[in-house]
Amino acid sequence: MNIGIIGLGKMGSAVAARLLAADYSVIAFDASEEIRKTAHEAGLQLADSAAEVSQHARIVWLFVPAGDVVDNIITQLLINAQENHIIIDGGNSFFQDSIKRAKNLEQQGVFFLDCGTSGGLHGRDLGFCLMIGGAQQAYDRAEPIFNAIAMNNGYTHVGPSGAGHYVKMIHNGIEYGLLEAYAEGFSLLHNQNRYNFDSKKIANLWTHGSIIRSWLLELTAQVFKEQGQDLSTIGGEIQEGGTGRWTLDEAELQKVPMPILEKSLEVRAWSRKTGGDYATALIALIRHQFGGHNYKIKKQS
Amino acid sequence: MNIGIIGLGKMGSAVAARLLAADYSVIAFDASEEIRKTAHEAGLQLADSAAEVSQHARIVWLFVPAGDVVDNIITQLLINAQENHIIIDGGNSFFQDSIKRAKNLEQQGVFFLDCGTSGGLHGRDLGFCLMIGGAQQAYDRAEPIFNAIAMNNGYTHVGPSGAGHYVKMIHNGIEYGLLEAYAEGFSLLHNQNRYNFDSKKIANLWTHGSIIRSWLLELTAQVFKEQGQDLSTIGGEIQEGGTGRWTLDEAELQKVPMPILEKSLEVRAWSRKTGGDYATALIALIRHQFGGHNYKIKKQS
Repeated sequence: MNIGIIGLGKMGSAVAARLLAADYSVIAFDASEEIRKTAHEAGLQLADSAAEVSQHARIVWLFVPAGDVVDNIITQLLINAQENHIIIDGGNSFFQDSIKRAKNLEQQGVFFLDCGTSGGLHGRDLGFCLMIGGAQQAYDRAEPIFNAIAMNNGYTHVGPSGAGHYVKMIHNGIEYGLLEAYAEGFSLLHNQNRYNFDSKKIANLWTHGSIIRSWLLELTAQVFKEQGQDLSTIGGEIQEGGTGRWTLDEAELQKVPMPILEKSLEVRAWSRKTGGDYATALIALIRHQFGGHNYKIKKQS
Repeated sequence: MNIGIIGLGKMGSAVAARLLAADYSVIAFDASEEIRKTAHEAGLQLADSAAEVSQHARIVWLFVPAGDVVDNIITQLLINAQENHIIIDGGNSFFQDSIKRAKNLEQQGVFFLDCGTSGGLHGRDLGFCLMIGGAQQAYDRAEPIFNAIAMNNGYTHVGPSGAGHYVKMIHNGIEYGLLEAYAEGFSLLHNQNRYNFDSKKIANLWTHGSIIRSWLLELTAQVFKEQGQDLSTIGGEIQEGGTGRWTLDEAELQKVPMPILEKSLEVRAWSRKTGGDYATALIALIRHQFGGHNYKIKKQS
């Protein structure tokens, strides 16, 4: 069975690799000629356009940035799409957009699944966590490929169209607060003047049996292992995708207080204005660790 | 080798059980006659006083509430303590108190180790995470018993006197923010009006491969499994020990911003004044899950 992949960035290429490892045939397309060339040299079967992908694959998975790009790709896919084809959006699209897309595609006999995809760069080896929304019938047909790329028990049909991206949106909203909580703790640990703590040693210690053990904490220990704990050369600007802000907007609409997310967004905005501090530099490095997000190196003065 | 345990509450009794399982002899004391009776019936060797414990054990471990109780117990232990005896404080004492106690005891030839103890109720089976401060010589002597009760790689000498409780204080400060971040996310998940999400299913899903997977998330899934997700009968008041407030005070003194901890403490204070909301009820249940902390059941109106 051919699976189409559109977009061979960090997530798309990782999913393609897992599909190949599970003996699926993959046909892929990326808008960048350079990325296509690299992927081709790495042995991936490449198409010359999104339209060509849907000629060869009845299930096509998108890993492209949220917004118009998704609609443009869908338009191209429809050129060759046939009845009962399935388009899966594996990116961080706004859930309302996913609801609209599913409705439009349904009218043309094509299924649309929205699939929140978590796990970051490490998902390639460990498997991803997939939150999937859309028609049960389409989910059932695509389930074997979800199973192939997810961690054990790491995929679920969470509801109708939009539900997958909605759940992923909240997931990301929680992530913002977790990052802040760890970073401000490690900032105090490093910046107080009473003891000479070894942050790597303590991050590692806490991953073994403490109440606050977590995957993000393991990645934090890895940051200290790779970078040391001084971090004075690391830029403290923290970027963000749309999901954190969307979560807060939705929470306000639904009259659900999310003070921690709100504060975390404030800190991120402040960090981009001012260059941030030790805590935000650490967050930038943790985000690089799990998602390959860029961070700045400060110029030596 | 005899190990003394003073205080047979949730932590003390769990540590005693692990020590017995590792073939140590334990002699224990608790101020409550009822607890002593129960422990005796369960086969634990009981003393009639703290003083009697230090007659039989060269290493005595305290699991009692922070404050004067610790000093009172130490006074009783000193009646029979001999040169080179080791007193370990496994509770959540203020680090400055631990520094003072270590100094005072040193003058009497007795060692004092401050041991931040994380892992909660589950530590009994899984092993604890121990953050230990104090003289290297005393640490080296006590290391086999730390090894016996900790999770694999779950104990470390983090610095001189007070360092163990200082690190545990920051650990708890981080925990406050993590709890808030998860709880407000699950509050939106449950209280929005667009989808009928199954919170238990989604908490479980997220523990398999997502970026936000953690021990606290596993306990959250367990809460939904045991309680359902409605929570309307659960009181939203969240109690606190001293450590969260101490962390924030210390952060202010050290000029390290901890906005997430600050906000979390505000929410807890608000919850006790007003009865809280869905998110704080969930936190009360998670705290019960890991630490056995009490929560209220609302009277049916």
